[in-house]
Formats: sequence, structure tokens, C-alpha cells
Amino acid sequence: MAAERPERASGEKAENEKNVLLPWEESWRPWPKARRKVHGCLECIKRQLFRVGDDWYFLFALGVIMALVSFAMDFTVSRVASAHVWLYQEVGGYPVLKFLSWTMYPVALSAFSTGFAQSITQHAGGSGIPELKTILTGVILEEYLAIENFGAKVVGLTCTLACGSTIFLGKVGPFVHLSSMIAAYLGKIRTSVCGEYENKSKQNEMLVAGAAVGVATVFGAPISGVLFSIEVTSSHFAVRDYWRGFFSATCGAFMFRLLAVFNSEQETIMALFKTSFKIDFPFDLPETVFFMFLGVICGLLSCAYLFCQRWFLGYVRRNPFTARLLAMEKPLYSVLVAFLLSSITFPLSLGQFMASRLSMKELLTSLLDNRTWSVLSQNASLERPPQVDPSNLWQEWSDPSITIFGTLSVFLVMKFWMLILATTMPMPAGYFMPVFIYGAAIGRLVGEAAAFVFPGGITAEGPPSPITPGAYALAGAAAFSGSVTHSLSTALLAFEMTGQIAHILPVLLAVLVANAIAQKFQPSFYDGTIIVKKLPYLPRIRSRHIGSYTVTTQEFMDTDFVILAQEATFHDILQAVTTTDAQEYPVVDNAESRMLLGVIQRANLVQFLQTREDASLPQKEQGEEPPSGRTLGEGCTISPVTLQLSPWTSLHQAHHLFELLNLQRAFVTQLGKVVGIVTRRELRKAIEDLANPKPAQ
Amino acid sequence: MAAERPERASGEKAENEKNVLLPWEESWRPWPKARRKVHGCLECIKRQLFRVGDDWYFLFALGVIMALVSFAMDFTVSRVASAHVWLYQEVGGYPVLKFLSWTMYPVALSAFSTGFAQSITQHAGGSGIPELKTILTGVILEEYLAIENFGAKVVGLTCTLACGSTIFLGKVGPFVHLSSMIAAYLGKIRTSVCGEYENKSKQNEMLVAGAAVGVATVFGAPISGVLFSIEVTSSHFAVRDYWRGFFSATCGAFMFRLLAVFNSEQETIMALFKTSFKIDFPFDLPETVFFMFLGVICGLLSCAYLFCQRWFLGYVRRNPFTARLLAMEKPLYSVLVAFLLSSITFPLSLGQFMASRLSMKELLTSLLDNRTWSVLSQNASLERPPQVDPSNLWQEWSDPSITIFGTLSVFLVMKFWMLILATTMPMPAGYFMPVFIYGAAIGRLVGEAAAFVFPGGITAEGPPSPITPGAYALAGAAAFSGSVTHSLSTALLAFEMTGQIAHILPVLLAVLVANAIAQKFQPSFYDGTIIVKKLPYLPRIRSRHIGSYTVTTQEFMDTDFVILAQEATFHDILQAVTTTDAQEYPVVDNAESRMLLGVIQRANLVQFLQTREDASLPQKEQGEEPPSGRTLGEGCTISPVTLQLSPWTSLHQAHHLFELLNLQRAFVTQLGKVVGIVTRRELRKAIEDLANPKPAQ
Repeated sequence: MAAERPERASGEKAENEKNVLLPWEESWRPWPKARRKVHGCLECIKRQLFRVGDDWYFLFALGVIMALVSFAMDFTVSRVASAHVWLYQEVGGYPVLKFLSWTMYPVALSAFSTGFAQSITQHAGGSGIPELKTILTGVILEEYLAIENFGAKVVGLTCTLACGSTIFLGKVGPFVHLSSMIAAYLGKIRTSVCGEYENKSKQNEMLVAGAAVGVATVFGAPISGVLFSIEVTSSHFAVRDYWRGFFSATCGAFMFRLLAVFNSEQETIMALFKTSFKIDFPFDLPETVFFMFLGVICGLLSCAYLFCQRWFLGYVRRNPFTARLLAMEKPLYSVLVAFLLSSITFPLSLGQFMASRLSMKELLTSLLDNRTWSVLSQNASLERPPQVDPSNLWQEWSDPSITIFGTLSVFLVMKFWMLILATTMPMPAGYFMPVFIYGAAIGRLVGEAAAFVFPGGITAEGPPSPITPGAYALAGAAAFSGSVTHSLSTALLAFEMTGQIAHILPVLLAVLVANAIAQKFQPSFYDGTIIVKKLPYLPRIRSRHIGSYTVTTQEFMDTDFVILAQEATFHDILQAVTTTDAQEYPVVDNAESRMLLGVIQRANLVQFLQTREDASLPQKEQGEEPPSGRTLGEGCTISPVTLQLSPWTSLHQAHHLFELLNLQRAFVTQLGKVVGIVTRRELRKAIEDLANPKPAQ
Repeated sequence: MAAERPERASGEKAENEKNVLLPWEESWRPWPKARRKVHGCLECIKRQLFRVGDDWYFLFALGVIMALVSFAMDFTVSRVASAHVWLYQEVGGYPVLKFLSWTMYPVALSAFSTGFAQSITQHAGGSGIPELKTILTGVILEEYLAIENFGAKVVGLTCTLACGSTIFLGKVGPFVHLSSMIAAYLGKIRTSVCGEYENKSKQNEMLVAGAAVGVATVFGAPISGVLFSIEVTSSHFAVRDYWRGFFSATCGAFMFRLLAVFNSEQETIMALFKTSFKIDFPFDLPETVFFMFLGVICGLLSCAYLFCQRWFLGYVRRNPFTARLLAMEKPLYSVLVAFLLSSITFPLSLGQFMASRLSMKELLTSLLDNRTWSVLSQNASLERPPQVDPSNLWQEWSDPSITIFGTLSVFLVMKFWMLILATTMPMPAGYFMPVFIYGAAIGRLVGEAAAFVFPGGITAEGPPSPITPGAYALAGAAAFSGSVTHSLSTALLAFEMTGQIAHILPVLLAVLVANAIAQKFQPSFYDGTIIVKKLPYLPRIRSRHIGSYTVTTQEFMDTDFVILAQEATFHDILQAVTTTDAQEYPVVDNAESRMLLGVIQRANLVQFLQTREDASLPQKEQGEEPPSGRTLGEGCTISPVTLQLSPWTSLHQAHHLFELLNLQRAFVTQLGKVVGIVTRRELRKAIEDLANPKPAQ
């Protein structure tokens, strides 16, 4: 991409010069022939690169750029984090110094992250997936995808990640946001060159690919990157977009893993969290029951987590003290939370019971260990090594006083509310990875318990086939993260991340069970955030609400809306524009018959008003007649209406059309006459009425 | 399911009885109280099972039924095939007897398969995926999903599969068809109980799940089953359908593998074609280039295959001799082709050079072997064992005179045209598995060549890391089958089938490269079949055809169509119904103003005509006035029109709407007045005109 841009810029320049230069001007410049040849070449390259519809190189560039950003970020974060470890070691045996070095680092980083990101843009905080989901339904969120905020989010996210497992936040959500920013920017470059044919659906295509690349470059997982981004951002999907996402995500994931090889982290391209479970006999048949039991636990815990998280997010906004802090002094809020979290995880106090010396990556790696901890800890020494031993990460979980079951339980209990607290911090941060690790800890606990109860495997006959608790950690991670985000592709993500797929059926069963429970009782994490943030949102119609088939559009449509007649004058239009804020207005033949002619955009009306106001200026195109005599039908372009609802269209059908076509509003006509308008607001209200029928009726 | 049905039947019966029985009738029967309690219980169960929208148990039943069918079929096929092997061994050393026993078996089986299936239904032949794809676009193919044909297809397919690698056909396509039959049948049961709310979109949802289950129960691969079925049958899909497919496919795949464990084929649930490639260092980085080269080869070969296959399918239908055979004597055609194919694969002649003693499963297993054949064959004895050795399947490919490279080349050259010939046989058969095996052979050849050239691995430094030709076979299978079917999920299928995912990135790259080449030059196998079979088909608009944005609906809409006025009389309607065969007619207020009121179904019109003809019979609901005076507006229900195109809607937009909403026709209105109609025929013509612009214009 870096190599492409100057070329493109000069290509554009050449084009402009060619159009602007007149024959007599051209002769002034030296070497006209050579220049013409160069121009011809550049033109040819431009034609090849910017053929309408052919944009695989944009997708390629998107993947490669995001892989570079992801790799550079990981690299920086690991350097900053190891500096923290070094500092913590070097301060010696003074507990106060140790405490200060442990807590001040995350406090400073999170304060900087919050302050820097928020000072540049208010959209930098949080995940980004809820907003992207809203954008993909057709809502225009101004500035959200502006490339200017890219740097703020990158720097902020790097600081957040450098806090490590103390703050316990991840990378996926902001990466999806970053990736969509790049996608939108590349799309804009393309549109500026290719012109008018690149319409809105084209931009959406690019955003969808961006979301896929975002996930794929974080985990090096192309297939599940595509599927996960589809599941969390869309309700309908075009197979064409899926192919494009695949291409882009594969390029990104390949580049991401390639960089790791070039950096000598790995010998060859391998999975990010490579596991080595035994594959000759991965699990015994009766273990399927345990996996399903694990799915039930993950589903129930995810319901509790989602409920508490949404409640607490609302509470923080309602409580006067925290609300004022969040409104006025965001960095201070981050500092307070970070101090609280890092005090708790201090390794000389409570932190020793929750493996707080491990980084996020080490936490996941340790939980996915193919060995059985309860067996290992029986034969191990009682003392923990002074530094984390990368080949024996499990030692951080081993504690002679409360055993590994104790540490896992402490971890689960404490991280539950600590994670909820961390999600309220107004800095760029992802919430998928912590949830994934939390799920792995649930699975590890269940797996270790099973291995403890059945030390030689379940089946008494035949050769002993001991239970692998690491496989339960894998299933738990997939099931818990899947049920929190309401997606099934986390199962595939777990396989792509670990490079092993032998446990596919039990893991899928656990994910299905957990999802069934979570989808029944709670909105997903992202939908919950959309609700709390009051973003435009179209709830889905639950299939048990059969009323959606009988409620017709005429029962919920809005009949009180502004209509413009073809012969509307300056004053009519002025009144309409000033009294309402609709984005488009229906135009009818006259106010009595109200036959729908088409719609007119608000922007066109404003422009119309401005040209009428500037009537004193000479107006060549608009003829000589006095402009104030002009009416709407003569002065503006009326766009035709493709889709009109009928008063008898059912709620179900209207909802389906809005969802499928990403509509924002639709007019209701009866024999060509406009009788109402339906927007997402009316639909939402009608759906909510279905769920909570009014007692009066 | 088997346990559910009687219960449901009695539940219905109970319901009917309850409605029909009058008080005095009820007292005639014994134990009225006990019966009422039983009725109450049954009603309660019915309410629980048949709640509108809650149909996960139907999806569960679908998965389990198909798993049972798939397992039973595999079991039968393996028994029949081993009987063939036994027979071939037992006839002793007489070449004539050996030849007869080798050829007569597949000849008889394919003749029976063709004759039996075709005698019951004409839809039994071929794959089924092209037809399902057509049905999912909203076209009604009468009788195609009738459950009555289930048996014919099952028996026919079992015979086809029992022919083994001689005929070289597979199971996927017909299984997708069988699964959709079951899905449609379950959907019908549901509709008959739940009533009117189960509309067409509900039926489609069930069919989509059916397709996923079909693929999943053949390979025991739930995730790629869902993805593959989406890619080959849809252009858009709803995330909701994807979840349902996932659930059903997981149930199916789990059951399918569970049965294998119960049947003692395996110790525990494992992949169908489990491989054991080394995972510590799966491949060296420079090998990525070889994998991409393999992708190029697979892409080019798939183009050649698709072209020849389509041409030959057309030739067989044009050639008078074969056309008559196929029309009149289908079994005879199958007999001739089967005899030709089995003569060529006779193991004492040409068959010895193409591993013809292996079954389809053994072929794939042998090609995915993790050992290097060229190394093995150097140390092996020259003589082939008299029987196939299951642990050394590669021996069938080893030949001292032409080496393994020779046998692989012979296999590739011969099977190319043999497979094309086999696809013309009019019996139930799938074409995915042969293509998958063919691709594996391509990959094995490339991999063995690479291992031969670089015996100690590519990188000279460090420990030796020899090339694994089996991984190339995996990539080749995914790339070739992916490019023939225009799908990317074959990569995932390859991992799910083998239980190893370490080669994900190189395999994905190969699949992407192969797909890019194939999609550029040829329609997919299924689209090609749709074209040859002349099924309704909406071509996609290639992105380079920017004319689709400028061509407007008024340029290609049909203006010559029948309109019914509200006051149309018996004779007008009779004329309309007899002169045209449209499925629905637009109704306007009167013939001059032509304001669109709605549409009326052909069936309603026919009913209207019939009731008018039977005017002499007493008609309570229709009042006492003479029926002949009635007009259309009074006697029929006019349905409202939700979607109307405008004359200025672009071709691109119209195509998008047709694809997204599965429309069959749309009316074009201007200020409420009907000015034209657009069906898929007009759209298709307009798109074809874009690709081949008329020279006159």
C-alpha cells in the first residue's frame, strides 16, 4: 500500500494536468513526447487498477495493512510489558516499592490511554463492534469511521493492552473498528477515482470485509474471522461478501503469521496458541456429557455476566458521582479503576491466588495446557519460582494452601466483577479476549474436577484414557465467549487458534447448549451495549410472537408527517425544513389526492432554498423568470420510490424488508395515495408492544 | 422421531374427536373422565411441541433421521462391496471369469439403480443440488421434494455407491436432495398442525437446514456442511438460518459418528478420514509457493473439466443415438457406460495402473497418507499382494514399470474422461466426492514430485524437514473441489474430514487461487447443470458490467401483459386465464387510468370462474343475487402489492431486489399507474445483453 499511494497520487495529478492543460500551455513544458508517454503509462496503470468492480487489490491491501498494524502493536505491547516485569523485579524486596511499581504502571498507562484517545475523538472508547453493527444496518454515524481517529485508537489500544492481565482487556473490538476505518478510507479513495458507480452497497461490502480482517489479524484465524464478524454484525449476508471477506482475511492472517516467522518468534507458520492434545484418542464417548454440562454452566454464567454488565454500565451512568467523573474527568475515572484493579492483583497479596503475574497470552496458554494440573501439582515443589517460567506456566496456578481448584475459583469469582468494572473504563479496549480467557478458566475447572474424580479415564475396560482438562478449557472458552456474543463460530475460532480440531463435536455441542441458554434469556453483549448506548436498534421478532403475522402496517404506521406537494412554494418548503428534521420527504401531485410521485432529500431542499435566497445573483441555468415563482416540482430532482408498503402488509413482513434491505423508512400507499410512513422507530415500538401487550387492549 | 410420530398422530386424532363429538355422542363411549384426562395430556404435549416458531426438535429429528439413513447406507454399501471383492477372489485364476465377475457386478447394479429410480420418479437421477438451488430462489418445482420419491432415491443411490470406484460416483448431492425431502416433509407436518403462520419463508428455512444436514451427515462435518450448502445453494442467507443449520448439522454429524462407535468401527468419536501429519513442523515457509502453484494447476484443470463436462452433457443430449437411448432406454445406456468403465478398470489390464482395486474411501485414505510414497516404494517388494492391504493402501499405487508418478498420471488422465462419462448416467449419484478424490490425486502428484526433488526438505539449514505429500493431497482435494463447485468452504471440509487443521493457511491460499481462476472463466458445476437442464436461472451481474447501473427498468420491462380491471366480468377473466399462463395478474381500477390496486392469483381466478359456472347450485355465502352479474372486484380477494419498481429503477437495483427477496415478478408503476412488468426472463435477457451488447446499438 505504501508503494501504491504515491503512484496513484501522481496518476491523479497526471489526469488533472491532462484535462487542464491547453495546447499552447503544453508547448511551454520540456520533453512533451516523453511526458505524454509517461502519462499514457500512468493512465494505463490506473485503468488496470481502478477498473470498476475489480477491487481485489484493495482487499489485499486491507488485509496486509491490518496485519502490519496488529503485528507492530503486539510487538510494542510485549516490549512495554516486559519492561514492567523488569521494573517489578529490579525494585528488590521492598513491598512498598513493589506495590508502587506494580500499580503505577497500569494506572499511568490507562490514564494516558483514556486521555489521549478522548482528547482526539469521543468515539475512541470501547469496542467499536456495536457501532459498526449499527452502521451496517444503514444508519449513518457521522465521523465514526473517519481515518483521522485511527492514530488515537491505535495508541490508546496499545496502552490498554500494555496493562496486561491487570486490567484484563483485549484487542478484538477496537481492531474491528480500526479495520473498518481503513476499509472506509480505501473505499473513499476508490470512489474518488472510479466515480459514481461505487454506491453505498459497495461501501458496505468493504466494511464487512474490514470487520472480517479485524478479527482475522488478531488471532491469525481467517475462516472464523469471517464467520464471527458476520454473526456479530449482520442479520443477513451475501455470499459474495463472504468470499471477499475470506480473501481479505486470508491475506491478513497469512501476513500476520508470516511476520511472526520473520521476527524469529516461530520456525514456520503455525497457530497462535498451538496446543498438543493427544489425537489418537482425544476423548472418551461418555465425556460428551461433561462437555454438555460445561455448556450449561457457561450458558448460565454468561446470562449472569451479561445481566450484571448491562446493569452496572447503566448504574455508572446514573450514579451522580461516577456520571460526573465520566462526563468531565474521564482519565481520573480510569485512574481510580486501574488503581483498584491493580491493587487487587498485586502478586504479594490476593494476586497470588489468581495467577496475576501471567500476561493475557500466558493466561490462555497456561489454561490450554495439555497436562493435568492436579497430577502435576502433587509432584511439584511448594515454592513458586521468583519469575514466571514459560514452560511451566501452570505453576502460577498452583498454591499449596488452596490447591489449583482454589486458585481457579478465586480467579473466576474475582475476575467476574473486575471484568465488569473494567468494561466501564472509557478507553479503547476489546471485551472478547477476557471473556474467552474467563471461559477457558471455567472449562479448566470443570476439566480438572473431572480428571480428579476419574483419574484413569471413565471407561474401566481397555487401556486407560485419562481426561484432558485442556480440552475442557478449549470448550469452555468457545462456549462462554460464544454465549456472551451470541455466536457459534467461536468454536471454529478455538480450533484455528490452537491448530487442533479433534474435539470438534463435543466443543460444538457445548457451544450450542450455552448459546441456546444465553439467547433465550439475554441480549448479546453487543446488542446490550447498543441498548445502553441508545444507538438506533431494530429488535428481532421472537418466533413465539405470532402476533407479528396479524398486526398490519396500518396499525402502527405514523400518519402525522410532512408531505410536500409538487407545487410547493419557497415558503412551504422552508416551513417543512425548519419544523421537521426528516432526511427525506415524500412528494405528491397535490395536497388533496396525495398520489406519491417520489421522494426528495433534505439536502436537495436546503440547496433549493439557498439558490432561491441567492436569487439576486445571476443564475444562468435557471433561466430568466423570477426565481421566487418556481415550485418544488420544477426546481428539484425527485427520486422515484421503489418500495411502498401497503396498509395490509404484516409487521413480520415489514420487519423482514427493513432488515433485508437496510431500510430507514418506507412510505405506506393505498391505491397510489400516501397514507403513512414507517420508520425504525415505529417498527421498534410495534415489536415492543408485541412482547408487552398493553393491558387496556 | 419414530417415537414421536404415533404420539402426534393420536394427538391430532384426539383434537379432531374433541371438535367433532357432541355431548350426547360422548356419553356413548366408556370412561369419559379417563379419556378426557388423556386428551388433556395429549393436548398439553401438542402445545409444548408445536408452539409456533419453536421448532428445534424438528431440526433435531432432521439431523438424526439423516444420520441414520447415511449410516445405514454406508453399512449396506460396504457389505455389498465386500461381497464383490469376495466373488472376485473366489472365481480363481481364470481371467475370463475374473473379468466377468469384475464387470457384471457394477453393470447389474447401475442398471438396477437407473431402472428402479427412474421407474418411480423422473427426478431421481443426478445430484439434486441444482434443483434445490432453483427451488431456493423461489421457483416452485412441483413434486421435486415429494416424500414418495425418497425410497427410490435411497435404493438407487445405494446401488450406485455399491459400484465403488469403478463407476466413481459419490453421495453428497443426492443426500442433499434426500435431506431436503425430509425437511420439506417435516415442514408439512408442522404446517398441518401449526396452521397458517408457517409461511413460505419458514419452508425455505427448513430446506436450508436440510441442505446443511445433507452435507454434514455424509462427511460428519457440521461446520463446513453448513457453509458448503450455503455457498452452493444461496446468494444471500440469514444468520438465523445459519444458526438453525448449525444446530441440525451438529446433531446429524454427532449421531453419524456415534453410530460408527456403536458399530465398533471406531473406539471413540473421530474424524472420518483421520490423518496423522506431523504437527510440530507441518510445512516449511517456502512450500507456500508450491501450494499456490498447486492452486493454479487445480484452477486450470477445473476449468477444463467444467468445460468438457458441460460440452459432453450437451453432446449426449444432441447426438441422436445417445439422446434416443437416454429418452427411451435409460437402463441400457447405464449398462453400456458401466460396462465400458468397468472394462477399463479391470485390475488385470489397465486397472492395475490406476489403483482400481481400492474403494472410494480407500482411494481417499491412501492419497492422504502421511508417508512419502516415493520413499516407501524404493524399499518395498515388487509384487503386489493378492488382496488389498488396509494398512498399506499405497501399494496399489506402486508399479515397478511406471513408478508411482506413472500410476498417478494414468489415474488423472483416465479418470478425467471417465468421470465426465459417468456424470451422464441417469441414476442417483453425487459428483462431489469423485472431484474431491481427483483433486487429492493432483495434489499427491505435485507433493510427491516436490518431495522427490527436495528429499531433505527445502531449507538447507537446521534439522531436516521433509515435505509431506499428504498435505498437498489435502490441499489439492480442497482446491479442485472448491474450484469446480465455486466454494471456499471445501478447505474447512478437508480439515473436518481429516481432523487436522495445521495446514490451514497454505490450503486456504490454494483454494483461493484455484477459485479465482475457475470463477473467472467458467460457471460452477451446479450452475452449469442448471444451464444445461434449462432450469430457471438468474445470472449474476459481473462487476465489470457497469452498464447495469445505467440501464433502467423501462428499457427492458415487458409492456405487453394482461391487466384485469376491477370491473372485469366473467368473460374478461375467462379470456385472460385461457390466453395466458401467468401465476398472478395485476388488478387496476379501470382500463384507462390503470391505477394498480393489487394482484390476484391465478388459482383464485379459476375458482371464481368455477363458482360462476356452477351458478345453478345453491350458494349460501354468495347471497341471492344472480352470480353472473358479479365482477372481479366483488367476487375475489385482491392481495396488496408491497413492492413496485419505478421505470427509473436501475437494472442493478432490480437484480439485487429479485435476488434478495426471491421475487418471481414485479410490476412497474409510474404515479400509481401500471406501465410494465418485470420477470426473471426479462432480467436475464437484460443481463445477457449487457454481456453481449447488440452490434446495432
